[in-house]
Amino acid sequence: METKIKVGIVGASGYSGEELVRLLLAHPQAELDAVTSRQYAGQTLAQIYPRFANHPRAKALRFVEGKPDLLARQAQVVFLALPHGVAAEFAVPLLEQGCQVIDLSADFRVKSAVVYKEFYGHDHPAPDLLPKAVYGLPEVYRAEIKSASLVASPGCYPTSILLPTIPLLRAGLIRPGGIIADSLSGVSGAGRKAELDYLFVECNESVRPYSVPKHRHLSEIEQELSRAAGAPVTIQFTPHLIPVNRGILTTLYLAPVREFANAAEMFTLTGQITECYQKAYGREPFVRLLEGKALPDTKNVVGTNVIEIAWRLDPRTGRLIVMSAEDNLVKGAGGQAVQSMNIMCGFPETAGLI
Amino acid sequence: METKIKVGIVGASGYSGEELVRLLLAHPQAELDAVTSRQYAGQTLAQIYPRFANHPRAKALRFVEGKPDLLARQAQVVFLALPHGVAAEFAVPLLEQGCQVIDLSADFRVKSAVVYKEFYGHDHPAPDLLPKAVYGLPEVYRAEIKSASLVASPGCYPTSILLPTIPLLRAGLIRPGGIIADSLSGVSGAGRKAELDYLFVECNESVRPYSVPKHRHLSEIEQELSRAAGAPVTIQFTPHLIPVNRGILTTLYLAPVREFANAAEMFTLTGQITECYQKAYGREPFVRLLEGKALPDTKNVVGTNVIEIAWRLDPRTGRLIVMSAEDNLVKGAGGQAVQSMNIMCGFPETAGLI
Amino acid sequence: METKIKVGIVGASGYSGEELVRLLLAHPQAELDAVTSRQYAGQTLAQIYPRFANHPRAKALRFVEGKPDLLARQAQVVFLALPHGVAAEFAVPLLEQGCQVIDLSADFRVKSAVVYKEFYGHDHPAPDLLPKAVYGLPEVYRAEIKSASLVASPGCYPTSILLPTIPLLRAGLIRPGGIIADSLSGVSGAGRKAELDYLFVECNESVRPYSVPKHRHLSEIEQELSRAAGAPVTIQFTPHLIPVNRGILTTLYLAPVREFANAAEMFTLTGQITECYQKAYGREPFVRLLEGKALPDTKNVVGTNVIEIAWRLDPRTGRLIVMSAEDNLVKGAGGQAVQSMNIMCGFPETAGLI
Amino acid sequence: METKIKVGIVGASGYSGEELVRLLLAHPQAELDAVTSRQYAGQTLAQIYPRFANHPRAKALRFVEGKPDLLARQAQVVFLALPHGVAAEFAVPLLEQGCQVIDLSADFRVKSAVVYKEFYGHDHPAPDLLPKAVYGLPEVYRAEIKSASLVASPGCYPTSILLPTIPLLRAGLIRPGGIIADSLSGVSGAGRKAELDYLFVECNESVRPYSVPKHRHLSEIEQELSRAAGAPVTIQFTPHLIPVNRGILTTLYLAPVREFANAAEMFTLTGQITECYQKAYGREPFVRLLEGKALPDTKNVVGTNVIEIAWRLDPRTGRLIVMSAEDNLVKGAGGQAVQSMNIMCGFPETAGLI
Repeated sequence: METKIKVGIVGASGYSGEELVRLLLAHPQAELDAVTSRQYAGQTLAQIYPRFANHPRAKALRFVEGKPDLLARQAQVVFLALPHGVAAEFAVPLLEQGCQVIDLSADFRVKSAVVYKEFYGHDHPAPDLLPKAVYGLPEVYRAEIKSASLVASPGCYPTSILLPTIPLLRAGLIRPGGIIADSLSGVSGAGRKAELDYLFVECNESVRPYSVPKHRHLSEIEQELSRAAGAPVTIQFTPHLIPVNRGILTTLYLAPVREFANAAEMFTLTGQITECYQKAYGREPFVRLLEGKALPDTKNVVGTNVIEIAWRLDPRTGRLIVMSAEDNLVKGAGGQAVQSMNIMCGFPETAGLI
Repeated sequence: METKIKVGIVGASGYSGEELVRLLLAHPQAELDAVTSRQYAGQTLAQIYPRFANHPRAKALRFVEGKPDLLARQAQVVFLALPHGVAAEFAVPLLEQGCQVIDLSADFRVKSAVVYKEFYGHDHPAPDLLPKAVYGLPEVYRAEIKSASLVASPGCYPTSILLPTIPLLRAGLIRPGGIIADSLSGVSGAGRKAELDYLFVECNESVRPYSVPKHRHLSEIEQELSRAAGAPVTIQFTPHLIPVNRGILTTLYLAPVREFANAAEMFTLTGQITECYQKAYGREPFVRLLEGKALPDTKNVVGTNVIEIAWRLDPRTGRLIVMSAEDNLVKGAGGQAVQSMNIMCGFPETAGLI
Repeated sequence: METKIKVGIVGASGYSGEELVRLLLAHPQAELDAVTSRQYAGQTLAQIYPRFANHPRAKALRFVEGKPDLLARQAQVVFLALPHGVAAEFAVPLLEQGCQVIDLSADFRVKSAVVYKEFYGHDHPAPDLLPKAVYGLPEVYRAEIKSASLVASPGCYPTSILLPTIPLLRAGLIRPGGIIADSLSGVSGAGRKAELDYLFVECNESVRPYSVPKHRHLSEIEQELSRAAGAPVTIQFTPHLIPVNRGILTTLYLAPVREFANAAEMFTLTGQITECYQKAYGREPFVRLLEGKALPDTKNVVGTNVIEIAWRLDPRTGRLIVMSAEDNLVKGAGGQAVQSMNIMCGFPETAGLI
Repeated sequence: METKIKVGIVGASGYSGEELVRLLLAHPQAELDAVTSRQYAGQTLAQIYPRFANHPRAKALRFVEGKPDLLARQAQVVFLALPHGVAAEFAVPLLEQGCQVIDLSADFRVKSAVVYKEFYGHDHPAPDLLPKAVYGLPEVYRAEIKSASLVASPGCYPTSILLPTIPLLRAGLIRPGGIIADSLSGVSGAGRKAELDYLFVECNESVRPYSVPKHRHLSEIEQELSRAAGAPVTIQFTPHLIPVNRGILTTLYLAPVREFANAAEMFTLTGQITECYQKAYGREPFVRLLEGKALPDTKNVVGTNVIEIAWRLDPRTGRLIVMSAEDNLVKGAGGQAVQSMNIMCGFPETAGLI
């Protein structure tokens, strides 16, 4: 049997960390050799996550307190599943010691330390690393990820917005102005935090918007849309909390550059959009372009690394409606991070993800 | 004790009908004297709806097959909780025999038989009655409802969109073009229908858009927005199904007429919107204008006839975001119908609703 | 209009306290004049509980820190919705100053300070009051409640177990030995506590037993069953947590004293049980004895003060299965407490509860 | 690459059939070559089950109408996921043509055609096959399954009851009389049927018992317990429906043969039970014996073929409480059937299941 690479997870006690544990335990070419968590130090994976307990490594592997030096000796690839502002403390020494780092926090997603401060409220902890970091959206930056040592894995909302929008902007099919993204997220998106707002009784039989009108994820969304459009893009983004464990459903309201006042124009535009998406994603293993009457449904993607995309032209309003569905913890977090690892390490991109 | 008016419900076996039963059993000035249902004929209310079984009338009152002649003798006010296309069969004879009719179907909401056919797919069954019908949105048409004999009670989605938007359009604060309404509805909105799509397992841990881009409710929404704007209005509307029993959360994307590029302009516009809503709804018993940081949450309105409204100006995009929450079966159906009855009969408008 | 009595709630920030607020705001003969909460002091009811915001008192009444002296001047009846061990601190001074106290904690439910210590792990804070306290199960202790100054309102699980069992024990129809109670509770039963175990993601799509085999509520359950049986009773009780907001479903496994090996004996026993329940509860406004094929369902009692009871004899095993459903926050907490208040104050027992 | 065996699924449109599709698409040694469904004939797996659409076979494989002759040519192993009474129609001709058949219905679980008729209400459709059929509980009948041509895969409730109970009965540690099984099942257990009772709104925020006191699964449960005890066993079984998609939680009330009135006896019995379970399941890959304070939770087994078991002795009542959790669609249906296939075909028992 071929040798596996050794990997570690810093902050394996949150929902994204737990998802990384699930994926890496089952990965054919990676071996999970280190998991850190302050609160669980000393306990085995099997004790904290009974669902993985029948996996041999889960019985053997114990959580330790996170120490970069030690980690660097134990693992070649280290995933950081930490809150923003803290990830940099690990990224700097791990990179210095030659590890490849995949950061799931927001710390290295935004290229500008000024924008970072505007949205996250504190100075960037390691601005020198920003130019080095690659935004880990494989369908967009595959080549850059291949040679990266530091990957900033995208946020869950951004993934659900960027993948449907970037090809249209690049192709010049939609206007960069006036984009609206309306998103619905399951409660795991809030993290495993003991706060009243996320108690079962407060979320069940409830749906509510939050962070209106300026959610932090806007910083990376607008950065990436601007790169695709070749000009500054400002969008409207409204997240909502809905009572499901996992899943994000995003509805995008877009303005085609070309009007479609009659059937012939609509036919032409339909062809252009179809071609645009086919060219961008027709061969992507984790993007499912829906056909016919099908519309995205989170239950069809939960537990998988797939994002579903469907779209409709509305001749009454002249708008293009694009809808996407993903699992916020897989394509929106741990799965996408593993996809980046596969690319960085030269594994088949779908390894451990199908 | 004062005399109560006699009321009846045609089609009391659906979710809206059941909600009417709940409200009318507890109403201080109405007595529920007739409930019809083909499938439940012969059984008592208590047998079909155990939750009402401790109410004396629920033990005595039996479902009957709906016969307009009989109903007209039993009830002064008749609620129709029937599918569209069927309600007219009852409305015509009941009105002829002097009943007051409150129809919860779509049959009399749209003023134009042509628009009706476009959206509902068949000829209007009683076009002569269309001019007589009053659109039963009390906060907008209170005076007309007072003297109506036929009230077309609004749909659940339209209520959640019209109440937040009409005052702004009337005041000329927003542009009539480009309005977007993104709505999330609980599963009871689909009715009590034995279809695979609405099984527990198909809805739980799922969220999905549907009827994109042309939902039937657009017909009444655009009619009423056009009346408020004094000009034809076409909007974008995307409904989504979410796993809650009850509740609609609507997020509206609106364009203020006046730009607000700096703090002073934003301050002025904020004042105008506040004043507009205060004037329209400051004294309305069933509209709750949220203050401070509060945002609508369906769990705060479920079981009540209240609609919550909050708004935010976004200086980054120049848009006005308005959000509303209501119970689709109360303010969006049975409660609003009872509110109309209260107005028609000269009762206090809040009777039986608080 | 007649004068209302003044009431107060100590600890109005938990789920039981919130339910008391709901019921007392709508009560025709009580006026809510004081609500205490350390964390919410200074804020109005409307700010903390938007769902009540349209009630005039909710806008006026502010939370205060709980001070017995002040409360005694403001309210004639005081409800204590506090954790066990703390309630006594308020009960003692309030009773001394002439208030009537209805305690929703466990502090005064158990008659024996020794048993209290065994189950709650600390000395009883006010053992002298124990003889004075009346166990607030109106269907069993109505006369005693009428003249009580201190009512210990029963726990949610005990109510769901005692009401179906006590009449059978009193009538000598079942054996006091070998009783098993298997109960399923909604998450609000755990209280409004910011703990990981009660997060949405940890409870949704999960069902689990807990406190096996010795839950604290056994102390009051066995005390009351022993009183009914006239001899010491020890039972088996297994609570489970299920993903609903509200509701308790209890399934009881009982052994009839009389065997029913043939149809005639089964017929006789069926008649005796029917008569026993009819005699006990046939006229009770809040007990619903189900008939025919109906079985209890929490959705039929949620939001009401009703407990549903159904039973089946199993000729294969010789057992009697009794099932009950209640809302843990109403009949299992706030509603039952208001029912006791109605009795203590000479109001109709159903006032504010139907 | 080694050759895979060809397998087929008859009735792949229900929840168990869908779960078989999921497991067999991913199975390393089986190739799914035939799926039948009357309603979906002609459509691909990808069209009906979007969640599998990224698997190459799901795009290629089309549903066909079930014809035994055709199936026998296409598949060596055929899974029947059909309603009881219908499975035999396929089993007879498939066996005649040399297929190995794994039936997930109740048709071949009960050895006695008389008992079958008592519980299922019609004559057994193929009584001659009953002696041939092996009850497909691998942990109990591994050797028999190895050489079977017809496996009757156990019901979901029976699996959750039999696995925790059989070792104790075989070891003579508990009495065969007086066993009580109280079970809670997710809604997928009711099948994908368009019935009002299983609509989202009817199940959400609801919990209810059903089929009290004589559920059909009692026939196979008592047959297998009797075999383990070496004497006829009659048990009490109460199923409940709870609002989760998947999962069964069973609580068993058992009477140890040996009393444990003091600490020493309790210590001894604890040792005997521990040893009994260790001996039975210590090396089983799909049975997880919980340790320490852990109790079963369906969320820890959903999506896996694992059953969790924990137990507690109650010195107060002298009873042994055993609790189990499983995924009703995996260990309770499709997963267990694949486990049997692995055994029949000589594959590693965990192939495609971890």
